[in-house]
Amino acid sequence: MPNDADLGIPDDAAPDPQHDGDPQQLGIAGLGARADRHRSRGRARRLPEAARRGGGSRGVSGRIEARLAGLGLTLPAVAAPVAAYIPAVTTGNLVYTSGQLPFIDGALPATGKVGADAAGGDGLVAAEDAKAYARTAALNALAAVESVIGSLDRVTRVVKVVGFVASDPAFTGQPGVINGASELLGEVFGDAGIHARSAVGVAVLPLDAPVEVELVVEFA
Amino acid sequence: MPNDADLGIPDDAAPDPQHDGDPQQLGIAGLGARADRHRSRGRARRLPEAARRGGGSRGVSGRIEARLAGLGLTLPAVAAPVAAYIPAVTTGNLVYTSGQLPFIDGALPATGKVGADAAGGDGLVAAEDAKAYARTAALNALAAVESVIGSLDRVTRVVKVVGFVASDPAFTGQPGVINGASELLGEVFGDAGIHARSAVGVAVLPLDAPVEVELVVEFA
Amino acid sequence: MPNDADLGIPDDAAPDPQHDGDPQQLGIAGLGARADRHRSRGRARRLPEAARRGGGSRGVSGRIEARLAGLGLTLPAVAAPVAAYIPAVTTGNLVYTSGQLPFIDGALPATGKVGADAAGGDGLVAAEDAKAYARTAALNALAAVESVIGSLDRVTRVVKVVGFVASDPAFTGQPGVINGASELLGEVFGDAGIHARSAVGVAVLPLDAPVEVELVVEFA
Repeated sequence: MPNDADLGIPDDAAPDPQHDGDPQQLGIAGLGARADRHRSRGRARRLPEAARRGGGSRGVSGRIEARLAGLGLTLPAVAAPVAAYIPAVTTGNLVYTSGQLPFIDGALPATGKVGADAAGGDGLVAAEDAKAYARTAALNALAAVESVIGSLDRVTRVVKVVGFVASDPAFTGQPGVINGASELLGEVFGDAGIHARSAVGVAVLPLDAPVEVELVVEFA
Repeated sequence: MPNDADLGIPDDAAPDPQHDGDPQQLGIAGLGARADRHRSRGRARRLPEAARRGGGSRGVSGRIEARLAGLGLTLPAVAAPVAAYIPAVTTGNLVYTSGQLPFIDGALPATGKVGADAAGGDGLVAAEDAKAYARTAALNALAAVESVIGSLDRVTRVVKVVGFVASDPAFTGQPGVINGASELLGEVFGDAGIHARSAVGVAVLPLDAPVEVELVVEFA
Repeated sequence: MPNDADLGIPDDAAPDPQHDGDPQQLGIAGLGARADRHRSRGRARRLPEAARRGGGSRGVSGRIEARLAGLGLTLPAVAAPVAAYIPAVTTGNLVYTSGQLPFIDGALPATGKVGADAAGGDGLVAAEDAKAYARTAALNALAAVESVIGSLDRVTRVVKVVGFVASDPAFTGQPGVINGASELLGEVFGDAGIHARSAVGVAVLPLDAPVEVELVVEFA
């Protein structure tokens, strides 16, 4: 199970899966929160100032970021826009995020389906590990939120979380897995982090990720 | 197939699956609409007055509740908040509910995947039974809505329904199953109950439930 | 792989799967965007003027429709309301669509699960074909949007896309498939078409469709 201290990854960039336009690449296309070295200039142009980050020397600027730091977490870099979608969009006072995978430094810490008993070398991801990945995916989702509203201090309520768990058909503990996301949001935002939620078990996720988390967040 | 008269469960409480904090319990974590005897004081503190209910003697107070009564239904109790999520959240004039399972008196009436031909002892849930469970899940979702806006009479439109059907891979009748939810909403709200909807077949749902239903509802 | 020029289907109507009310029909129930010959009068009564269309002689009336025409596309007919749900609903300045299948002239161009290597006669749908179907489903979703706001010229932003891909458990290229929808939205709306997105692989979809796409769109 990953250490929580490993879940916040400042801003190292990852290789670009180059999933657009080439049918041969359909199988390795990613989702919103991948870091993307080759498009860093695009990111600097497109994302607000607050989303542009230096290295490990980056300061902690807000109330919520201070709380994240107290949890041993920092917001990871968000991916540059790829294809015709981006990590998050605002409408009115809501932010909708793209589905976020548990990328750490641009790579998935594990792949495969989540199973109830993953100790026997059956190739399944253990539920408690998947819970940690859901926490990572939620952290990536917060980075996506911050990229469009500038500061997480503007968040007034986490409205909705949808958690998809790539599941062995016999695994029915999706809520326990997605608690990894829910608990992080509670720790970070307090009462404002208490949300409505759906957790479902799906056949397979992009890049064979074990979990995917999306948010609807209200901001002021 | 459950009798419609059985689908409305006033307020008996169910055992708490205690799914938080204990990795051993990951497999039995539940979703929003479970009744929860052990946290009834918490519920009384956190939910609005209208959500606090007495026993079978509870009166029918509103226009929509009267319509439910005419359908032989009463709103079930909603679960107390568990972990960092709750049955429903409002933002602006919208209510987002958590995904609701077809709990009746805190227990699932059936578990397993839905299949096209469930008569042969293959362990699958029949589509017509699953349709009744979708109706129950939608009723639980209405209880979740009421818990945050006080009265269903304030509902001006059911905006969106997403219905997840735990499906045998050969079963393609998800819309017919989720019609159980859609038809209830039409019966209860009339034109205001006519909604946009997505129905999908997923690998597995929490607690091995056959269906899960979530709502976005507009209120005044 | 279907030719893009085939993806826009003006308005020929399809047979009604008659999926309501008859438990025997649960297996063939459809989703929002089916054309429906038998209810054309219902459509004319219920949908706004702009949604009522003539045959091939229909004129191109708006900026966005002109752009669609430049792409070789025309908006297909939307289905009449079936059961208690409809192709799209507005709340405030948002449109929520129903999940849209890749119907062309009321029929699915292919059925089955999407697989990574579909050349070997294994019955799977090829990823590049599925990408084309996602484009078709997105076009159907635009028709659903137009049916409730009268003109796509009113769209100010595509906020969110959720793409469900019926997936062989070994297929992990869902983002590449849903790029078919994302790229269409970018081509049609430019910057306003750049959205947040989730792509997931599900066990099975209604009518054994390979993809299903839903939208949240902001309009003025």
